Amino acid sequence: MQLLEDGVPLAELSIERIARTAGVGKATIYRRWSGKEELFVDVLRAAEPPDPELPGTSMRDDLIVLLESLRRRGLVSRASAILHNVYVQMKSSPRIWAAYHASVVAPRRALMLEVLRRGQRDGELREDIDLELANDMFVGAMLVRTTMRPQGDLPEDLAERIVDATLAGLRPVSSGTTSH
Amino acid sequence: MQLLEDGVPLAELSIERIARTAGVGKATIYRRWSGKEELFVDVLRAAEPPDPELPGTSMRDDLIVLLESLRRRGLVSRASAILHNVYVQMKSSPRIWAAYHASVVAPRRALMLEVLRRGQRDGELREDIDLELANDMFVGAMLVRTTMRPQGDLPEDLAERIVDATLAGLRPVSSGTTSH
Repeated sequence: MQLLEDGVPLAELSIERIARTAGVGKATIYRRWSGKEELFVDVLRAAEPPDPELPGTSMRDDLIVLLESLRRRGLVSRASAILHNVYVQMKSSPRIWAAYHASVVAPRRALMLEVLRRGQRDGELREDIDLELANDMFVGAMLVRTTMRPQGDLPEDLAERIVDATLAGLRPVSSGTTSH
Repeated sequence: MQLLEDGVPLAELSIERIARTAGVGKATIYRRWSGKEELFVDVLRAAEPPDPELPGTSMRDDLIVLLESLRRRGLVSRASAILHNVYVQMKSSPRIWAAYHASVVAPRRALMLEVLRRGQRDGELREDIDLELANDMFVGAMLVRTTMRPQGDLPEDLAERIVDATLAGLRPVSSGTTSH
């Protein structure tokens, strides 16, 4: 974190340099991390808010908690110039991005799909909807604000509004093509 | 484009170097572009698919055309290693990103909001929905696949499926909380 705060580019963050800065031998580092990528992902995870506990009361409640955690992650990234810079650099390093994806993004996505699958089983989600598409609809609306629009508004009730609007649909109720 | 194809990083693409490569004087470049950022954005726009014509037949039709153009842009970016690399680099250059945002992203977003506003006026979109939120719901579901998931499936009917699912909502029809 000290090296990142000092503005050292990711490409120059070698295990050797990290060990030197931490005042330990390289062997000490390698005992816990198999490489620079793994160490780096752990540093990032330590700086990010922890993964949320799902209430499990309903699909809607779980989805709101999951989207809320994306919103918080966005707020943290905006508040920290270092973290923001790290995300941007990470995207241009395929190996680090792959490590971050495997240990953070993929499990989060799997959890999201699991929540949707339960919701479909319990009658909270349309049966004819593709779960991947449903995932992207819920998650995309939040991510487009947190990651693509640095000035985008992130109000406290955003997760709830996205979940409810996505469940209810944007078509006016009276003129819908539903069967009534 | 030649310099980008040769793998020259964005940071090293000076007007001087571009002029030298093109075999013209710097003054010739400055007659058309006020700076490196503006020139660069024009290069990108030339490589991207042109903005779509809206059919204007309904909000749904217009939205599908707008999302389809995002899908095509994603396909082009995936097919071109240069273009993809340029997008990634652009994100880490605040000045170039700002220029691209002002001339490409902002007008596209304004057009999208205009389509939604017309839809709301014509009774195709719920009156109580915030247009910014509606925009993010339609656009986010597409962008999460085109820009955040390099391996994500981009089937031909994706735009239509996103628009229809977002309009109809993901809640099962029979157990909805609509007034019937």
